[in-house]
Amino acid sequence: MNSAYTTRLQTIRREMDRLGLDAFIVPSEDEYLGEYIPDYNRRLEWLSGFTGSAGMIIVMKAKAALFVDGRYTVQSRQQVSATDYQFLHLHEDPQAKWLSNELTAGQVVGFDPRMHTYQWYLDTKSILDDFNIELKGLSENPIDLSWHDRPAIEVKPSILMDHKWTGITSSEKRANMGNLIADKNADAAILFSAESCNWLLNIRGQDIPSLPIALGFGILYANGDMIFHINKNKLAVGINEHVGTGVTFLAEEDFEGSLKSLKNLRVLADFNTCNAYSMIHAVEYGANLIQQPDPVLLPKAAKSEIEIAGMREAHIQDAVAEIGFLHWFDQQVEQGLRLDEATLSEKLFDFRQQQPNFVEVSFNTISAAGSNAAMCHYNHLNGTPAVLPENGVYLVDSGGQYDCGTTDITRTLAVGNPDDDIKKNFTLVLKGHIALDLITFPEGTTGSQLDILARAPLWHSGLDYDHGTGHGVGHFMSVHEGPQRISKKGNDIALVPGMVLSNEPGYYKDGAYGIRCENLVVVQEAEGLGQDGKTFLQFDALTYVPFDLRLVLTDLLTEQERQWLNNYHLKVLTLMSPRVNQADLDWLKQATRAV
Amino acid sequence: MNSAYTTRLQTIRREMDRLGLDAFIVPSEDEYLGEYIPDYNRRLEWLSGFTGSAGMIIVMKAKAALFVDGRYTVQSRQQVSATDYQFLHLHEDPQAKWLSNELTAGQVVGFDPRMHTYQWYLDTKSILDDFNIELKGLSENPIDLSWHDRPAIEVKPSILMDHKWTGITSSEKRANMGNLIADKNADAAILFSAESCNWLLNIRGQDIPSLPIALGFGILYANGDMIFHINKNKLAVGINEHVGTGVTFLAEEDFEGSLKSLKNLRVLADFNTCNAYSMIHAVEYGANLIQQPDPVLLPKAAKSEIEIAGMREAHIQDAVAEIGFLHWFDQQVEQGLRLDEATLSEKLFDFRQQQPNFVEVSFNTISAAGSNAAMCHYNHLNGTPAVLPENGVYLVDSGGQYDCGTTDITRTLAVGNPDDDIKKNFTLVLKGHIALDLITFPEGTTGSQLDILARAPLWHSGLDYDHGTGHGVGHFMSVHEGPQRISKKGNDIALVPGMVLSNEPGYYKDGAYGIRCENLVVVQEAEGLGQDGKTFLQFDALTYVPFDLRLVLTDLLTEQERQWLNNYHLKVLTLMSPRVNQADLDWLKQATRAV
Repeated sequence: MNSAYTTRLQTIRREMDRLGLDAFIVPSEDEYLGEYIPDYNRRLEWLSGFTGSAGMIIVMKAKAALFVDGRYTVQSRQQVSATDYQFLHLHEDPQAKWLSNELTAGQVVGFDPRMHTYQWYLDTKSILDDFNIELKGLSENPIDLSWHDRPAIEVKPSILMDHKWTGITSSEKRANMGNLIADKNADAAILFSAESCNWLLNIRGQDIPSLPIALGFGILYANGDMIFHINKNKLAVGINEHVGTGVTFLAEEDFEGSLKSLKNLRVLADFNTCNAYSMIHAVEYGANLIQQPDPVLLPKAAKSEIEIAGMREAHIQDAVAEIGFLHWFDQQVEQGLRLDEATLSEKLFDFRQQQPNFVEVSFNTISAAGSNAAMCHYNHLNGTPAVLPENGVYLVDSGGQYDCGTTDITRTLAVGNPDDDIKKNFTLVLKGHIALDLITFPEGTTGSQLDILARAPLWHSGLDYDHGTGHGVGHFMSVHEGPQRISKKGNDIALVPGMVLSNEPGYYKDGAYGIRCENLVVVQEAEGLGQDGKTFLQFDALTYVPFDLRLVLTDLLTEQERQWLNNYHLKVLTLMSPRVNQADLDWLKQATRAV
Repeated sequence: MNSAYTTRLQTIRREMDRLGLDAFIVPSEDEYLGEYIPDYNRRLEWLSGFTGSAGMIIVMKAKAALFVDGRYTVQSRQQVSATDYQFLHLHEDPQAKWLSNELTAGQVVGFDPRMHTYQWYLDTKSILDDFNIELKGLSENPIDLSWHDRPAIEVKPSILMDHKWTGITSSEKRANMGNLIADKNADAAILFSAESCNWLLNIRGQDIPSLPIALGFGILYANGDMIFHINKNKLAVGINEHVGTGVTFLAEEDFEGSLKSLKNLRVLADFNTCNAYSMIHAVEYGANLIQQPDPVLLPKAAKSEIEIAGMREAHIQDAVAEIGFLHWFDQQVEQGLRLDEATLSEKLFDFRQQQPNFVEVSFNTISAAGSNAAMCHYNHLNGTPAVLPENGVYLVDSGGQYDCGTTDITRTLAVGNPDDDIKKNFTLVLKGHIALDLITFPEGTTGSQLDILARAPLWHSGLDYDHGTGHGVGHFMSVHEGPQRISKKGNDIALVPGMVLSNEPGYYKDGAYGIRCENLVVVQEAEGLGQDGKTFLQFDALTYVPFDLRLVLTDLLTEQERQWLNNYHLKVLTLMSPRVNQADLDWLKQATRAV
């Protein structure tokens, strides 16, 4: 607890007085509404000291509340003063409902409309209206006015994607997407997602660690023309030629002008991704909004053959690094060295960094020894990194951004002599991984329908894991990309060829050990299957790294599962033999031996 | 086509003139809003000649439209005059949208508020309001006024359930449900579903073929008191003592008076099951409606141990009949008799009728020889019943209402020498049935999550079936009972102990043959599984009838599947040996032989 935060709260309350506000809402999101928030936009953290990835603060004159979800129950109470804040649940204690109890008719709630989705605004306003409480959009953010030591925005140039890895020009993409807009009988679409805009323009950026995008937001017209609002200092040399004719780069501050030009146009907008600011102003300036999911989401998720070729190359380079690391790891363990989680993570990074197309890690490596692996989101940098157990497992979940694709892999490794309980449960997790990898399914099938395949072997033993089975992955972009996913939770997005997903069942025994088996897979047509014009689909693994056979109880595998494991390892050996050095190849041969 | 229907249309248009209507809506539903419509309430059929189970007609001054779904595209055009009606799609051509295009501001659409759900009314009114078109609830139904040869309502007495099969008195059930209402901070619940009311009162009825309920609707109070509106001529002798104190039986016509008594009360109501009439009047009379799913649905679906004991006894009696039929069937085929579908269906009915607790069939038997079985909803009574093929399969899907429970079973039987394609696909369907039967799953799992288990063996061969995998089943009540189901379509109802479901994957080869393997199963706790306080669940089969081993390619079964089949057949033999006659027992022994 730091009294600096108490002072900041007082500062904000003075600003609220000046603005005539009875309450002020501070979300963890910033003006880009993305998953990652750069340091200079971590307003909620500046105000309260809370560093979690999701939360909301409501400041009132005499009290304040911090809303967090179950992941952050403990952390929020450690980081934030209970004198200054009361703690509420982000989802179970709806903020609008809470405000309507705390305030009375005629009072005013301020919010920064750039930091909330339009859907949030509509929902919240609808509730507060019932109580005659005003929800007032602010043109100045009280935190921005008070935050004097705010980190500078680092201006790093955008990246022009090599045509070799996109295969299709921005002009072609924009023409195709423009036709989609015209098909919906619309004139334009507001594209608030920077990922959508980057994909359309065949550019990337360096604004956020691990997520290689150039922040900004755009408008695409039915004729394929596009406006992209971006800090113009970030524009790379040659970007105009790269994106082709019809693209105008404007400053972010000029977005209002672009919204004004939408007058009388029919405009597609995703109310769940566009911010309230843009929608409120677009309506005010006479645009006819048509609510639609972001039209770029599906084309971006269903990757082209060329994008998949880039993903495969990224995975081969990633496998060179991972195989080098696994070989080195075995050597260290054989020598009796009980290395710590930080050393291991850094060594793996060294191997990745040697790969020609490597740019950066795609997320912070989870390097977890022994019982630490039982925490799904363990971070060895919080506290002292643990050393390897004498007998047990080490779990490493990591990935890379390559300029041709994105990777994400988890391997669970034997250390010493793990007991049979570990081996049995590793084998059950692997059986689930195999069942999901093996399935063929008719067009129209969603990830939610497939989820149980990865869980059933655990369920038969009364076990389960408390996370999703698979997330979408971008192409040199976010390692968590929608709209598809494989999870218990219902999801109505059908899987289509070119979608990349993780296949990552796990099992976590509290205080003892954690297991996860993760490959990335791509959806493709299952040749020769399907009749009466119906198409069947299947997964093809993109990850080419052996599973640790020392943890497999082969007696628990069916004949089909045993064959899958041998075939997968043969594929790994065949693909990787020409790419790894002789010492690693010798290691790989025994690591991929038939069982 | 019958010109009588044209005359009826003219009659309705004269009534519309008299009532000042520009359009009049006729749904297939009646005032009970149930799945089955008795003959005397088949208003849409009287008007148009259309006999399908779902549809809607809109009559206007100069035109009329019949809305049907994909199942009835062909049939509607055969039964209904294209001169009098245009044909539209029930779901793809929304009726309110269509009306708003056809009519102009100020015009009036009449509907009978007893025949539509309140949710339909709210949705339709909201759209028509935008066009200033009035949606007017009629106090007299123009069809009822014009339908002079309407079938008489058959008044058959209600049935008092034996306490042996309910185990809990109506007073106890009503007290429990009253507490649920109080927990929601409400005073009463409108129970529009006759099934919910019958279950609460431990009564049944004879108003509808195959669905043994007494039609009516009720109001339950938080203190457990209940009003049930029913044709009082149907009240069985002794019903007052049977239901216990606190139950008032009133005529259906007096419902308005009961609604008036809800003034100022907080009243739970399911807008998707309550009709518009009751909701509009309840609001008018000052009730505070709280939208909630019918509170009886889940307690009724999660059957008690005593209800399950009754279901088991019904299934044993049903198995005596089914085994007798299967034995007799084999004898006929061996003698070279190629019997027809009607003869077979009648013989099966004879066997069922000999069972002590049998009341009636639970739905019209699907008796389908050869290629007819490829039609999922085949009815041998439409046209000439087909005879058995020389070599192929016969599919029979049937069930019984017993006064202790309800059954539903499908068996696919070998006739002569079915080819290997049939045997292979029968084995795939059986593998799916086994996978679903074998699964254990954590509390909170929905039927939608499990659905793929029954499909995966077919999917691996590029095959599928175009229907759900399992529906809920009532206790001496509807053979299709919600809210749970096992299907591709998302459903958020978690399976809980006591729920009964069908497990019925199939495969249908157009013009060739059809296969379905259906047992009923009950959800129960999986003893000894689950840890950290988590409960795991499993299915237990209620159906005790062998699958036809002549259709099983044992080489395609895994060891676990082979064991399942042998264990299931051993259970059938053990349970049924004391109940079947010696000749049937000899047949049963070979039919349940280990493979």
